[in-house]
Amino acid sequence: MKDKLLVVKIGGSIIENDSILNDFLKSFSKIKGRKILVHGGGKIASSFLKKIGIVPKLIEGRRITDKNTLDVVIMTYAGLLNKKIVSTLQKYNCNSLGLSGSDGNLILAKKRRVEKIDYGFVGDIEKINTNLLDEIINMKICPIICSLSHDKKGQIFNTNADSIASKISIELSKRFDVTLKYCFDKPGLLSNNNLINSINTSDYKNLIEKNIIKDGMIPKIDNCFYALKNGVNEIFIGNHNIIKSIKNCTTLTL
Amino acid sequence: MKDKLLVVKIGGSIIENDSILNDFLKSFSKIKGRKILVHGGGKIASSFLKKIGIVPKLIEGRRITDKNTLDVVIMTYAGLLNKKIVSTLQKYNCNSLGLSGSDGNLILAKKRRVEKIDYGFVGDIEKINTNLLDEIINMKICPIICSLSHDKKGQIFNTNADSIASKISIELSKRFDVTLKYCFDKPGLLSNNNLINSINTSDYKNLIEKNIIKDGMIPKIDNCFYALKNGVNEIFIGNHNIIKSIKNCTTLTL
Repeated sequence: MKDKLLVVKIGGSIIENDSILNDFLKSFSKIKGRKILVHGGGKIASSFLKKIGIVPKLIEGRRITDKNTLDVVIMTYAGLLNKKIVSTLQKYNCNSLGLSGSDGNLILAKKRRVEKIDYGFVGDIEKINTNLLDEIINMKICPIICSLSHDKKGQIFNTNADSIASKISIELSKRFDVTLKYCFDKPGLLSNNNLINSINTSDYKNLIEKNIIKDGMIPKIDNCFYALKNGVNEIFIGNHNIIKSIKNCTTLTL
Repeated sequence: MKDKLLVVKIGGSIIENDSILNDFLKSFSKIKGRKILVHGGGKIASSFLKKIGIVPKLIEGRRITDKNTLDVVIMTYAGLLNKKIVSTLQKYNCNSLGLSGSDGNLILAKKRRVEKIDYGFVGDIEKINTNLLDEIINMKICPIICSLSHDKKGQIFNTNADSIASKISIELSKRFDVTLKYCFDKPGLLSNNNLINSINTSDYKNLIEKNIIKDGMIPKIDNCFYALKNGVNEIFIGNHNIIKSIKNCTTLTL
């Protein structure tokens, strides 16, 4: 039997609100066993961009990352947020270590091809260095991974945190029994404001047809089912409380 | 006989000029064997502070680190600079991994006591987690350490990079035969614009008396002799070329 591993991805208000982040990290620190945390930091990067007079560019909710934007993204994701998370976890006696995609060659990516839109310095993941994560986990240290990748040619890329969490979970499911939890601002997937407790691939198809699951949620959920089909044991979507209890959230099954 | 370890500290124009930094990192990547790089990033933090309308506060050349300044320091040191260094080294096939003082509990510090001047969020080093560095070096990965420490109570501190390099060298000299190289803007210590090739503690005393070594260089050199007295094998001070050759630099001996 494989050892258990928990992968948690946080986004939205959890990382934008100091008090919620602190509560979340306190709970996260108490989880026994192997665990990995993945984070982005979108809105905080946007607020810094505004401070230095750069207007954030988003098309269909996705950031266009030019050179100046990339610098601010690196500064907020790998700098401010990642170190805030790590130092807070150290306070709660959870030994953690921050990583970006270039650290230890963790996330190799290539620049997204320009089709209709040029997203700029945005990377699509090619390879995860699972050996590095394995070694760090074996040292009883929790990896805190920010959403940056690199091309091993000196270029850093802004990279979707959901995709990083999913790809890492898939790769590590060869060695571990992986549970993946996506924490965002809502209690889970909603249908007419009611929580959907459980969803499988055929429910998912129906909900897309009924236009209940739409827009940005579709690539998110596609990512999840892809991960379930490729070795990840279980996936839950909900707010930051799902690291304490999975009673009120959405469970994904095939 | 102990294994050899090289500790290099970079500052000044090496980290402020992209072209010099790139050349330095290319040379650094070619050095065989165990190595650690320590960096600060002072002026780059100052230029970002100005961009967001904060006037950098320095007293006798030392930064006063208030809350907003600390955020920018974390963003530039652990974010922009550290990741630029790591991704560039990856390009040159030197597997490296960025660390701040809170990562893996690497550098424990306490807030500098307020005497004449309140330096704000500045930390004085209490303990280095040498086991972490040992483990990373054993993985054939080069640690890239930025000049931040933490107090394990959730607070990050701005911390002198020279002191970090010196303290790490001393601690690791228990396990390794450590060479420490300080790279800055000058070819070494100068006397009437002539390079001082070698300096021992009694030369040092004389040069202070003659006012040839003064101001900010005194704590720097004090740090060096302290390191030599506490186990570090050899110390060189010079510009970025001293990682290629130690012909033109200052060698410190007891």
